[in-house]
Amino acid sequence: MDQNSGFIAAVEEAKMGAAEGGVPIGACLVSKDGKILGRGHNMRVQKGSPVLHAEMSALENSGRLPASAYEGATMFTTLSPCDMCTGACLLYKIDRVVIGENVNFMGGEELLRSRGKEVVVVDNHECKELMSTFMKEKPELWNEDIAV
Amino acid sequence: MDQNSGFIAAVEEAKMGAAEGGVPIGACLVSKDGKILGRGHNMRVQKGSPVLHAEMSALENSGRLPASAYEGATMFTTLSPCDMCTGACLLYKIDRVVIGENVNFMGGEELLRSRGKEVVVVDNHECKELMSTFMKEKPELWNEDIAV
Repeated sequence: MDQNSGFIAAVEEAKMGAAEGGVPIGACLVSKDGKILGRGHNMRVQKGSPVLHAEMSALENSGRLPASAYEGATMFTTLSPCDMCTGACLLYKIDRVVIGENVNFMGGEELLRSRGKEVVVVDNHECKELMSTFMKEKPELWNEDIAV
Repeated sequence: MDQNSGFIAAVEEAKMGAAEGGVPIGACLVSKDGKILGRGHNMRVQKGSPVLHAEMSALENSGRLPASAYEGATMFTTLSPCDMCTGACLLYKIDRVVIGENVNFMGGEELLRSRGKEVVVVDNHECKELMSTFMKEKPELWNEDIAV
């Protein structure tokens, strides 16, 4: 699998979230050797969950793994990760976070960099469109998701 | 309810985790007016979950809430919160984190303080005993839980 597939999977997950009437953010965790460990999308609406943001769903769907499985891994996410998802990437020592966009929301990128992680912002048009449409249509849901 | 009840509930949760053969860490989220919003314990073993640390379980069991519900809230936890749980407290703008002990593990206390949160370390003997016994009996499980 080339590394683009991880990003494509994250965008697919975001679209699934949109189609389900949820928060349209997706993520995909890819191992050092290019294997998808887990993918998922925000489940606030679908499961009534305040913890299953996209990156958390991808981690949850990866199941229990030894620390070695996360070495050299990349978390692909369609939106800049919030404090919780940033912290989860730090806990699991995920080396690289590839972010679809950080225009609609800027998360913990500075903290990730300060802890030695590689942060790549793709600035993807489709990710931006998904989020800006959602934020316009369901501002209360978005505010709840990021606790403002 | 007095504030001690939140800490007592967190310790009860940690003991439940121990009795279930899991990671013996518990947490309880208490609102500004002293109501328990949610309580829970680490569910790595019980649910095969890498994201349901104790504080995350307490948040998950609190369900979907508006940002206002977290204002002035306190997260009681039996052990110093890891990066993920620290980030979750920051996302939900939880003002105060009361920690049973930080001898067996030191988490994101400095980051919480740097973001203006009140951090209280109780240095509770029972919490220390629960963790040190667990770390001695199941080191592989503990290492998996904190990804080392």
